[in-house]
Amino acid sequence: MTNKVPAPLKVVPSNSPALTLTRSDIEAMAKRVCNWGRWGPDDELGTLNFIGPEELKAAAALVRKGKSISLGLDFNFHGPQNTGWGNRFNPIHTMLATGTDAVAGNQDAGMCRYADDMVTMPLQCGTQWDALGHVFYGDKMWNGYDAKLVDSTGAKKNSIDKTRSKMVGRGVLLDVARFKGGDYLADGYGISSADLDACAKAQGVEIRRGDFVIVRTGQMQQRLTDGAWGTYAAGDAPGLRFETAEWMHRREIAAICTDTWGCEVRPNEVIDAFQPWHWVVIPMLGITMGEIFNLQELADDCKEDGVYEFFFCAPSLPITGAVGSPINPIVVK
Amino acid sequence: MTNKVPAPLKVVPSNSPALTLTRSDIEAMAKRVCNWGRWGPDDELGTLNFIGPEELKAAAALVRKGKSISLGLDFNFHGPQNTGWGNRFNPIHTMLATGTDAVAGNQDAGMCRYADDMVTMPLQCGTQWDALGHVFYGDKMWNGYDAKLVDSTGAKKNSIDKTRSKMVGRGVLLDVARFKGGDYLADGYGISSADLDACAKAQGVEIRRGDFVIVRTGQMQQRLTDGAWGTYAAGDAPGLRFETAEWMHRREIAAICTDTWGCEVRPNEVIDAFQPWHWVVIPMLGITMGEIFNLQELADDCKEDGVYEFFFCAPSLPITGAVGSPINPIVVK
Amino acid sequence: MTNKVPAPLKVVPSNSPALTLTRSDIEAMAKRVCNWGRWGPDDELGTLNFIGPEELKAAAALVRKGKSISLGLDFNFHGPQNTGWGNRFNPIHTMLATGTDAVAGNQDAGMCRYADDMVTMPLQCGTQWDALGHVFYGDKMWNGYDAKLVDSTGAKKNSIDKTRSKMVGRGVLLDVARFKGGDYLADGYGISSADLDACAKAQGVEIRRGDFVIVRTGQMQQRLTDGAWGTYAAGDAPGLRFETAEWMHRREIAAICTDTWGCEVRPNEVIDAFQPWHWVVIPMLGITMGEIFNLQELADDCKEDGVYEFFFCAPSLPITGAVGSPINPIVVK
Amino acid sequence: MTNKVPAPLKVVPSNSPALTLTRSDIEAMAKRVCNWGRWGPDDELGTLNFIGPEELKAAAALVRKGKSISLGLDFNFHGPQNTGWGNRFNPIHTMLATGTDAVAGNQDAGMCRYADDMVTMPLQCGTQWDALGHVFYGDKMWNGYDAKLVDSTGAKKNSIDKTRSKMVGRGVLLDVARFKGGDYLADGYGISSADLDACAKAQGVEIRRGDFVIVRTGQMQQRLTDGAWGTYAAGDAPGLRFETAEWMHRREIAAICTDTWGCEVRPNEVIDAFQPWHWVVIPMLGITMGEIFNLQELADDCKEDGVYEFFFCAPSLPITGAVGSPINPIVVK
Repeated sequence: MTNKVPAPLKVVPSNSPALTLTRSDIEAMAKRVCNWGRWGPDDELGTLNFIGPEELKAAAALVRKGKSISLGLDFNFHGPQNTGWGNRFNPIHTMLATGTDAVAGNQDAGMCRYADDMVTMPLQCGTQWDALGHVFYGDKMWNGYDAKLVDSTGAKKNSIDKTRSKMVGRGVLLDVARFKGGDYLADGYGISSADLDACAKAQGVEIRRGDFVIVRTGQMQQRLTDGAWGTYAAGDAPGLRFETAEWMHRREIAAICTDTWGCEVRPNEVIDAFQPWHWVVIPMLGITMGEIFNLQELADDCKEDGVYEFFFCAPSLPITGAVGSPINPIVVK
Repeated sequence: MTNKVPAPLKVVPSNSPALTLTRSDIEAMAKRVCNWGRWGPDDELGTLNFIGPEELKAAAALVRKGKSISLGLDFNFHGPQNTGWGNRFNPIHTMLATGTDAVAGNQDAGMCRYADDMVTMPLQCGTQWDALGHVFYGDKMWNGYDAKLVDSTGAKKNSIDKTRSKMVGRGVLLDVARFKGGDYLADGYGISSADLDACAKAQGVEIRRGDFVIVRTGQMQQRLTDGAWGTYAAGDAPGLRFETAEWMHRREIAAICTDTWGCEVRPNEVIDAFQPWHWVVIPMLGITMGEIFNLQELADDCKEDGVYEFFFCAPSLPITGAVGSPINPIVVK
Repeated sequence: MTNKVPAPLKVVPSNSPALTLTRSDIEAMAKRVCNWGRWGPDDELGTLNFIGPEELKAAAALVRKGKSISLGLDFNFHGPQNTGWGNRFNPIHTMLATGTDAVAGNQDAGMCRYADDMVTMPLQCGTQWDALGHVFYGDKMWNGYDAKLVDSTGAKKNSIDKTRSKMVGRGVLLDVARFKGGDYLADGYGISSADLDACAKAQGVEIRRGDFVIVRTGQMQQRLTDGAWGTYAAGDAPGLRFETAEWMHRREIAAICTDTWGCEVRPNEVIDAFQPWHWVVIPMLGITMGEIFNLQELADDCKEDGVYEFFFCAPSLPITGAVGSPINPIVVK
Repeated sequence: MTNKVPAPLKVVPSNSPALTLTRSDIEAMAKRVCNWGRWGPDDELGTLNFIGPEELKAAAALVRKGKSISLGLDFNFHGPQNTGWGNRFNPIHTMLATGTDAVAGNQDAGMCRYADDMVTMPLQCGTQWDALGHVFYGDKMWNGYDAKLVDSTGAKKNSIDKTRSKMVGRGVLLDVARFKGGDYLADGYGISSADLDACAKAQGVEIRRGDFVIVRTGQMQQRLTDGAWGTYAAGDAPGLRFETAEWMHRREIAAICTDTWGCEVRPNEVIDAFQPWHWVVIPMLGITMGEIFNLQELADDCKEDGVYEFFFCAPSLPITGAVGSPINPIVVK
């Protein structure tokens, strides 16, 4: 830690959407963006199917300067799950063997000196993928599977382990906060499809089929600078507007990621639905969502070299039947 | 599951090394391969330092056909930690919210329907990286740090989170089992430096500075075919001979990985040391070690196209102070 | 451990009940023993209601020689959950702070030297109470509550914390194994109501309203002597026959406990129901069940002094919404 | 929750002790109260040895009206470990099987319908016993054992499981808060030996050898009334003064318990020791300590009937090698 007082961050003022949407808007959108059956009745990958050999080769060709950047937030006791939403908690990392034991001679009967450890953590407590089994629309999940296929023994369909070899491709950063002239967007700022397009244009980057689109709001950096998460988890946040579901559908992107807890703008745009965009985009559109990405280093690098596209690799842990996975996304430029 | 009876696997007979090594051999090797100070007194990365921009660019250039392959074993209750070594256990995956709750209407007050989950797992229970703080030599660890810096609150030095952006580069598969004419090497088979060189030559691939070298013994596939792990964890195994520490030192590779529990041959080559190769290669050489890799699909692909080099990306989870990390390594060819 | 070879244990041969019962027998029994509404529509305690002030005073009067005995099996990694039934596992006990850390001086900045620890455990992995919310009959649980009131967030009704002050009263040991002339009853031995009555009579003890009735089969001692749990968890076992549900109903006992995994005889007496006695006695009769009790010391003491009644206290941990609790039952004679 | 506004609680003002004690006072006290060797060189029970058959019989004779009261605080996500002291956290209770699964029919292949659950919790997160291995004096623990006997694999000496049958006897409540005329003592209030004696006298109760002495400060009730724990864990608190170590030694009590996080007064009475009373009373005196007891119902009952002595039973869970145990203490009057 440095004692130098950092300059205050510049905030882009909130533009909280009016609460004009209703349940029928959700229903209409669900129909418009529905991809059920598009990749056959047995599909469990959704829009990750947009990534094929050509996309992978094109992604690798983006490695030009040989620099790797991690987008993973540290997993520890001081993470963002301070609000207890959904009984989530921060990671509990404990030791099974230590160097103090080793030096005390307590391990010498086993003829090796070592440390070992374990973790207890919600799969969505930090930088993470949502699996397609994470959110339901009514009684259904992605591709029309029955939501009851996700029970206490795990998800029988749409679990994260199905994606084991898929989380790699072309990544694009849309640094909306800087595009809008600030260090971060204020809570409640709703990013529109027009914002996304304008930002891409300003950055000189094209959104392509099969992309991992990473939207930076600056909210994480704001909280890290503040030294307090506040209501980062489940509270008000800048994020994607409900209507961007169509943009994602039209663009045929593989995944959408942000530096916020839940990608979409909060407060909710619908009075009687929590995260209405989630209602639609995971179960109907079938898009994989990445949350709590730590984007500062990447954003600084992109600003510096002006290149907002890169090779992206963020393998999910193949935990059988899981509906999410902690990850450490890697960008190579 | 299929009812088709598979052909029996072909086994390469064991060549268990004679127990002729002693503690003084360990000491001598520790001196010979010691890299302490090579990257400065504050280094916590060891041989991962061999990977630089040129290595990354060369690795990306290996993506030729646009195919991604996962090397991660499933993380679940039926994993290889059945022996209880070091109080390790198999992952415990439990749900915080389910589709059955959702369909029962129990979540509707919260205005969203979703599933959520958590895991409790040793960090080295499955496919994994050992951090440099995982094994000690006497009272010291990599780069000469005091082993007591790893206590119940975690590792203050040489923890896995320091590697957050480093686990990417050129990968090479050395399929020693097939090179030796079998499906798997018998437990106790000691792979020598000469074996490694001959295998590479036969495969037409060169080992280079900064490589992730992945050695296939076939043991995991044997156990998966058997349907029982037996003493896979901590028991007898095929693996690298003690003398390969020098080979790794000379080759300046970044990391060594296998499809076994502990990379090195077991029974131990020294009567009064458990895993003598570990004593030396992690704390003195400073090499990162990958274990329990699932190599069958990769091996089959390499056999088919004859290409044993590829882009490799296996990001560690940046768990603060951890001495290991579960991973899902991704190969892109 | 001693090197002395113990005398082989004497086994009472199995009398596995014929598989003559059907689902309609279960239905008929459910009606006969149903206590729903007996203590009002809001009751969550069931037969624990039989314990009142008089019962407590009478229980205390049984303390005659001033000796306390624990019926708790050790909670550790080597417990009986080796079969993985229902994804149960043995307790995982890990340290948050240790004496080796303390002596290394690592805690001195905090100005105290201490050890601290945590546990991860299924609530029914060892000596335990089943809560009334543990087993359902169709879509209902005790007192007619909807089974859906038990979801991923816990039990809204019939949870163990409701019993916080109730697990105390008169205990009676029925040492059926010794009464039948052996050290243990063979797996499959079905204990009948007549056995229970004859055993009580032979022991000179009376079963009274509000009793904690503890039935000893000797199975635990057999497995501890063997040094292997085998299929103790969920496998064949000596235990109470289905018809004893009526005996318990008639006797108005508060709770039933044994030294086995599941109290009732296995194999099941009904071909298409797992543990048919459980189907009825928890949700319909409303009886609290104690399992995996370690009864050897108590049995030896009772044999020695001929007194099979005692003060009994086995407080449940008031874990909010839990459907079971690990316990350490204490007997005072 | 009721909407009725409760009357404000009456607070006894703080009398924070001056910081006049030093390390040499700790050393002198350690010598004065040292019980090492008193019960032989192999003892691991300390002052629990004061409880013998006569004490147990006398305790049982105190059951006069047949009423049982629980002193256990609910174990859940909303417990007092909000400050993260020592990486402690609140209990995490999760389900392995649910009623929603059952009703969905997902369990029917197993032919039973049930719920099951697990917990992950620090052993001292709520109502609890400290084991004698919990606190060290220099490099030693109770009875002179080496502190290094407590490592990552647990405590080899002075673990809680050794007390399995001992936590039962005569209990005495000293309601210091009410004796001093308030509902609770303010944080920093230091209870002296004279306070304890005067309170006992006013209540008409005698402290005897082998007693479980339970001191009520009212702090827990204050926090429960407030609806916020604040710094209950590890912050300022009313509690026993350092000099009461001698009172406990002289009185030969078996255990000391309170409704606070740490029994002793905070701020610390010594400038360079955290909880100086702990330094001495656990490792030197060998006393068992009970913390975070929920005393309101007991205090009200004692006030009503004027009887402050009772039968007390608080069995520890025999977790092998543990240095603490969650408990649900039961009082029978």
